[in-house]
Amino acid sequence: MNRKSSGSEIERLIGLLARLPGLGSRSARKAALALLKRRSELLEPLAAALSAAAAKIVECHTCGNLDTTSPCTICQDPRRDANLIVVVEEIGDLWALERAGVVNGLYHVLGGHLSPLDGIGPERLNIGRLIERAVPPVTEILLALNATVEGQSTAHYLTSQLQGRGIAVTRLAQGVPIGGELDYLDDGTLAAAIKSRRTL
Amino acid sequence: MNRKSSGSEIERLIGLLARLPGLGSRSARKAALALLKRRSELLEPLAAALSAAAAKIVECHTCGNLDTTSPCTICQDPRRDANLIVVVEEIGDLWALERAGVVNGLYHVLGGHLSPLDGIGPERLNIGRLIERAVPPVTEILLALNATVEGQSTAHYLTSQLQGRGIAVTRLAQGVPIGGELDYLDDGTLAAAIKSRRTL
Repeated sequence: MNRKSSGSEIERLIGLLARLPGLGSRSARKAALALLKRRSELLEPLAAALSAAAAKIVECHTCGNLDTTSPCTICQDPRRDANLIVVVEEIGDLWALERAGVVNGLYHVLGGHLSPLDGIGPERLNIGRLIERAVPPVTEILLALNATVEGQSTAHYLTSQLQGRGIAVTRLAQGVPIGGELDYLDDGTLAAAIKSRRTL
Repeated sequence: MNRKSSGSEIERLIGLLARLPGLGSRSARKAALALLKRRSELLEPLAAALSAAAAKIVECHTCGNLDTTSPCTICQDPRRDANLIVVVEEIGDLWALERAGVVNGLYHVLGGHLSPLDGIGPERLNIGRLIERAVPPVTEILLALNATVEGQSTAHYLTSQLQGRGIAVTRLAQGVPIGGELDYLDDGTLAAAIKSRRTL
């Protein structure tokens, strides 16, 4: 960028904002401008929130969640069902399940999925700690992984590792999403929905 | 959002990121996660850049640009042509013209456009300072405003205010954008291009 007009502080801010997912260089400029125009409402609180996050947020050593404590609030919560561990690929998936309020068990965040082509083998994921956790009182491990090739091959690998421990290893149901119109669904989803059809 | 899982620090960070233009609540969550995963490369530099911007960036009292000094680097630059003031609606427009490197004069940022329906009259824009600046050595004021109804009515108002000072008030040419295909252009652009046609 050839821009003599503004200080290097603005350049640096735009450059860093452009590295956030979802922001290109154009939207990073718009965001920087919005921040500079709304200092006390937006820029200063965001600077403070980022500093607070850098100082306080840690990864939970038990499950891999991000929180201000380790073990995290979920792992420490006595009302949670300690018999169930829900395994997810990313923290964003954990957040999605928590927003939906559909899980009363504990979580385990893998930090990604197996991807041999990208050099991501089991040792790169948070799997060793999951195996350690697969002991009583845990009775079920639900593999809530993405319905992608990588997610499913990761599920396959985990199933083989978790066998023979007297723990049920389950996965999410696959089929037509609620509100989904058949005409707009891909062939794979339709095939899964037919294969797992239920008697009414 | 019903999310018991993570600290209020993460919530606050997501909430602030979601207020940036171009980021919805979903992309704000993704951005927060990316920041928390890449602390030393992204989160900490961004926190520092925001603090530096809050501390150092000021509005130029002459032209309304944002910079670390007032008057800004452009207003102070002796190589700039002090005969020409280019009037823009927003700082983003100034940045666009600087990136294109097509202006060698000075700027004046209005901070928006006239919009009576939104209660934005002349007193809400940086117009008084422009009138003060419309004195020698300035010989031309180029109104580089958006080709919208609001931009053009603002240009009309400014033209009436700047009359009788022996200063040429000009505006950007309107027509087919470079690389533009006629079939994809709106009627207004086509009409402007026909009306302002040139002899080859």
